[in-house]
Amino acid sequence: MKRTGKTIYFDSPPVITATSAIAGEMEGKGPLKDYFDKIVGDAYYDTQTFEKAERKICGENCQNLLKKANLKPEQVDFLLAGDLLNQIVTANFCARELKIPFIGLYGACSTLIEALAVGCMVIDGGFAQNIMAFASSHYQTAERQYRMPNEYGIQYPPYKQWTVTGSGAFILSKGGSGPRITHATIGRVIDFGIKDPNDMGAAMAPAAADTIIQHLSDLNRSPDDYDLIVTGDLGEVGKTLARELLREKNYDVDAILDDCGVMLYNDDQKTGAKGSGAAASAIVLASYLYQKLNQGEFNRIMIVGTGALLSPITALQGDSIPSIAHGITIEKPV
Amino acid sequence: MKRTGKTIYFDSPPVITATSAIAGEMEGKGPLKDYFDKIVGDAYYDTQTFEKAERKICGENCQNLLKKANLKPEQVDFLLAGDLLNQIVTANFCARELKIPFIGLYGACSTLIEALAVGCMVIDGGFAQNIMAFASSHYQTAERQYRMPNEYGIQYPPYKQWTVTGSGAFILSKGGSGPRITHATIGRVIDFGIKDPNDMGAAMAPAAADTIIQHLSDLNRSPDDYDLIVTGDLGEVGKTLARELLREKNYDVDAILDDCGVMLYNDDQKTGAKGSGAAASAIVLASYLYQKLNQGEFNRIMIVGTGALLSPITALQGDSIPSIAHGITIEKPV
Repeated sequence: MKRTGKTIYFDSPPVITATSAIAGEMEGKGPLKDYFDKIVGDAYYDTQTFEKAERKICGENCQNLLKKANLKPEQVDFLLAGDLLNQIVTANFCARELKIPFIGLYGACSTLIEALAVGCMVIDGGFAQNIMAFASSHYQTAERQYRMPNEYGIQYPPYKQWTVTGSGAFILSKGGSGPRITHATIGRVIDFGIKDPNDMGAAMAPAAADTIIQHLSDLNRSPDDYDLIVTGDLGEVGKTLARELLREKNYDVDAILDDCGVMLYNDDQKTGAKGSGAAASAIVLASYLYQKLNQGEFNRIMIVGTGALLSPITALQGDSIPSIAHGITIEKPV
Repeated sequence: MKRTGKTIYFDSPPVITATSAIAGEMEGKGPLKDYFDKIVGDAYYDTQTFEKAERKICGENCQNLLKKANLKPEQVDFLLAGDLLNQIVTANFCARELKIPFIGLYGACSTLIEALAVGCMVIDGGFAQNIMAFASSHYQTAERQYRMPNEYGIQYPPYKQWTVTGSGAFILSKGGSGPRITHATIGRVIDFGIKDPNDMGAAMAPAAADTIIQHLSDLNRSPDDYDLIVTGDLGEVGKTLARELLREKNYDVDAILDDCGVMLYNDDQKTGAKGSGAAASAIVLASYLYQKLNQGEFNRIMIVGTGALLSPITALQGDSIPSIAHGITIEKPV
């Protein structure tokens, strides 16, 4: 079997041959603004509802991706995608337009890395030549669904994160040129008993640390073997906590651990503990990280999708918030 | 590539080495009652909420499956699962207890067949020895989530289906003895414009017909090559419609097309157009169909998971109900 411990490897590492990232207004004012394919300033994006706006962003991003990859939808064997909305409606409706055989996923904000990991297994297993993967989120749709009622004029808790508006999409191919995904670790569900739906970073940090340690120890690597280890959307609070959890296990990652949600905003942007959402890792990997890998500025990175499996219903029924994290190693083009 | 058209095949067909099925009260009075591992008569199942009851059924079913398979959770490489509830909470919380690396899926009522199809790719691709797959649903949790408000004393539309309470769980293995999954067709999202959230069978029938035709034509087979072609949960209305759609394309399936949702209830059980829900195909495959395949009574069947990607939010925003269907061929043990 193509496994080292719980971590899988690929005989022919699948190649990320194209990416596309569309970001929202707040992200379009942050440090990564010049790396995105497009910035959408209007939360409604000329539609009647926020849900339709998220769908429009995502659909446009898929079309831009296909154009950049010079592929028609019928040349893509499978679509693997998901989002934060109930019944993953953004992905479903985009899949309807694309007409590509569709594998719907739900891993909260870990969905994009879950899609890439499964997509690599499908390609390296010999079942596909090209796969499309995407994830999206939208500030207004997510806040309404997960934290209703959202009242005006209340204080924003400093540990609360800001849901990223945007969509990141990828073409994974058997061969071609681009960064290569060499290894993947599918995470376990971990629950440290956090019950505050505003405190997602703390809920997810233990899952992130667990997957990072699993990945590194399976591969007998140290953090020094990476130029960057980047989590999806732990935010400032979760990032600090993850560092502490890793330090306790003698993994010193202070110099190279960062978080996509943190990277997306400037300190003066009033986003609480900075970014969260399925789009956080998706748009940062599809823009900044992808470009830096392609330019050889990074030789090897690990990206860890982090998902807080929060449900408003079970939270009201007294349950805590289980979390999950999936990690992949990506290397620069050969 | 291991593909014939859009249909994939497996070099070493993965084996369903064990199954377990727990069913609810209504299913426990239907024609398949003697095939289930257990029948749970209480919708609360000694818990405080219907959601916790669904989770308890599902967790107990997983434990029974592991016992029947003589496996410990740490011997299972991946868990692929999902359910109908927002954020697939039943699967998340069961995954938390099992501690098996978890790939969360959402395909509405097609989830179980999606899980088996992806699981086969993971095993035949060389990434796993054993995989667990399950799906569940529960009448009360589904009705509340999808069709709120559910008022007492209103008329039950004759085309409305009854959401199945239960959970079906499977061990897929590389080798071993049991029925083998030889082929899979991942479906496209298809939308015929149905907007009535009570009319799921009509919404799903076109997706089912599309996938059945794709599967048969890719493999150059006719319905006569199968002992049974069985859809997930079209119910009486959707089954009739699927037959008509197939007949229009010159596929005469009248003698061998059935539907898990229809098979679950007797005519006098007052379940409208009979069963629907992610558990419909899961418990029928895990019980009756599995036993008939093992006994050689069926040589070869196709099971088609059918999912209506209904969202209460987008329905209220005027959208129709897109649907999807995934099909797999299963053959009796060698």
